[in-house]
Amino acid sequence: MKNVGYYNGKMGLQEEMSVPFLDRAMFFGDGVYDATYCANRRLFEIDYHTERFYNSLRLTRIPFKLSKEELVAELQKCIDAMDSDGVCFVYWECTRGTAPRNHLFPDVEPNLLITITESKLTDLRTPCKLITEEDTRFFHCNIKTLNLLPSVMGSQRAFEAGAKEVIFHRGERVTECAHTNVNILKGGKFITPPLDELILPGVTRRHYLEICRRLGIPYEERPFTLDELFAADEVFITSAGTLGLPAYEIDGKPVGGKDKALLKRLQTEAVADFYKETGYKADIV
Amino acid sequence: MKNVGYYNGKMGLQEEMSVPFLDRAMFFGDGVYDATYCANRRLFEIDYHTERFYNSLRLTRIPFKLSKEELVAELQKCIDAMDSDGVCFVYWECTRGTAPRNHLFPDVEPNLLITITESKLTDLRTPCKLITEEDTRFFHCNIKTLNLLPSVMGSQRAFEAGAKEVIFHRGERVTECAHTNVNILKGGKFITPPLDELILPGVTRRHYLEICRRLGIPYEERPFTLDELFAADEVFITSAGTLGLPAYEIDGKPVGGKDKALLKRLQTEAVADFYKETGYKADIV
Repeated sequence: MKNVGYYNGKMGLQEEMSVPFLDRAMFFGDGVYDATYCANRRLFEIDYHTERFYNSLRLTRIPFKLSKEELVAELQKCIDAMDSDGVCFVYWECTRGTAPRNHLFPDVEPNLLITITESKLTDLRTPCKLITEEDTRFFHCNIKTLNLLPSVMGSQRAFEAGAKEVIFHRGERVTECAHTNVNILKGGKFITPPLDELILPGVTRRHYLEICRRLGIPYEERPFTLDELFAADEVFITSAGTLGLPAYEIDGKPVGGKDKALLKRLQTEAVADFYKETGYKADIV
Repeated sequence: MKNVGYYNGKMGLQEEMSVPFLDRAMFFGDGVYDATYCANRRLFEIDYHTERFYNSLRLTRIPFKLSKEELVAELQKCIDAMDSDGVCFVYWECTRGTAPRNHLFPDVEPNLLITITESKLTDLRTPCKLITEEDTRFFHCNIKTLNLLPSVMGSQRAFEAGAKEVIFHRGERVTECAHTNVNILKGGKFITPPLDELILPGVTRRHYLEICRRLGIPYEERPFTLDELFAADEVFITSAGTLGLPAYEIDGKPVGGKDKALLKRLQTEAVADFYKETGYKADIV
């Protein structure tokens, strides 16, 4: 099958499937999700993604019944139903269930939705443009919820500005992008915002910290400012499908490009880990 | 029909209908809505609700095609399909459309969803309990979006505290409740928070302002604090279905009850307006 969809055990083409009218995602965005990539039908960093998913469920008090093993088995079933064994985007969400519209939690089972979509990893050799804007999202950005309208709007504004992503900031403090984390290199150090309620705990962000520890590269988890962003040696964004993409321009001003060697070392290690786990050699670094 | 559902022209029972798997509400909460009540199959304050709806559409850049007249005709079609001619909750939403998950705006038609549900207006004679909590929502509360998870969580917490609603505040400043506006009476004056990005421009809030002008009652649209809330003569919440419900307790402390005469004058006028417009005499004040 091409681009598999799944809803509570039923599988089909995403474009042809339907879901109940009263799924609470339709009225409240009342659900959480997570996503990663697979290649050769093998999931990448699934332990971290499921850990984050169950944390999102806990924080939103959604009583999802499946164990981690059962969830991964459902994901694998969908991956195995794909025609392609290339790189795929693996997305799953759990909504609070199906019930007449009412803010209060209904006494029903949550719904599980999965999509598997043919995709590719971002090529890390072509630096990108970024823009910035004030972060006006809610204070629960550590939870991977379906309340994504500000990210949708920001992504679209970035696109219309010819940029790859929008960097959100709360006053001077840089938080993250619409669907990636933003990190900098400065003086040989990897610097990434700390985990609090203002950013999503990115799995690739975590991966970069692990690589730093492994290679003995100094790192800091701390807030950094817009000024630091513009003065950084390198600015780069990370997500499950974008394993460290540098920017050459932000808001029309040139940035980064001053420590390509260190960035390449980190990127190369990240892509090598993807290969180790999936057996897929991505030609992106 | 009981509890009519509608999706892009198709009508059925809400519980039996389905929507496309790839509706963007399912992934991003990417849509806006509005809601009012009808009675005797006649809509209440529909001009103000549609005006707000088109403003939400404009702010989220959703290219909804129907004119106001066409939209109201679709609502009326659904209302007319109901078995009941009593009080019904009339809800409609427009999502950005159906397309494979991608943050960027798709080049597709938006979707229109409607629900008509048998309901009743809140009885205003029984004061309620409220709780407060820090407002951690996003900065677009003037747009009536489907990104409602914080309101869902707050409503549930209020319910579990035995309260009717949760009053959000940003620091000392009171904003609004999870699904109603909060207002006070003090020294014979009606005081309600000003219209900015921190609150939804409530149609019933507007209605109260209009009543004040009509009756020559002084009013202020200005921010007020938690201290002012607790010291108010009356604290009351307003929404399309709750035409001015006083609180007798907030966070366990007694409040209000000190200007019942003025509150009743306002409530009576609001309920009379409902009667004038719908022909339905609500026994709630």
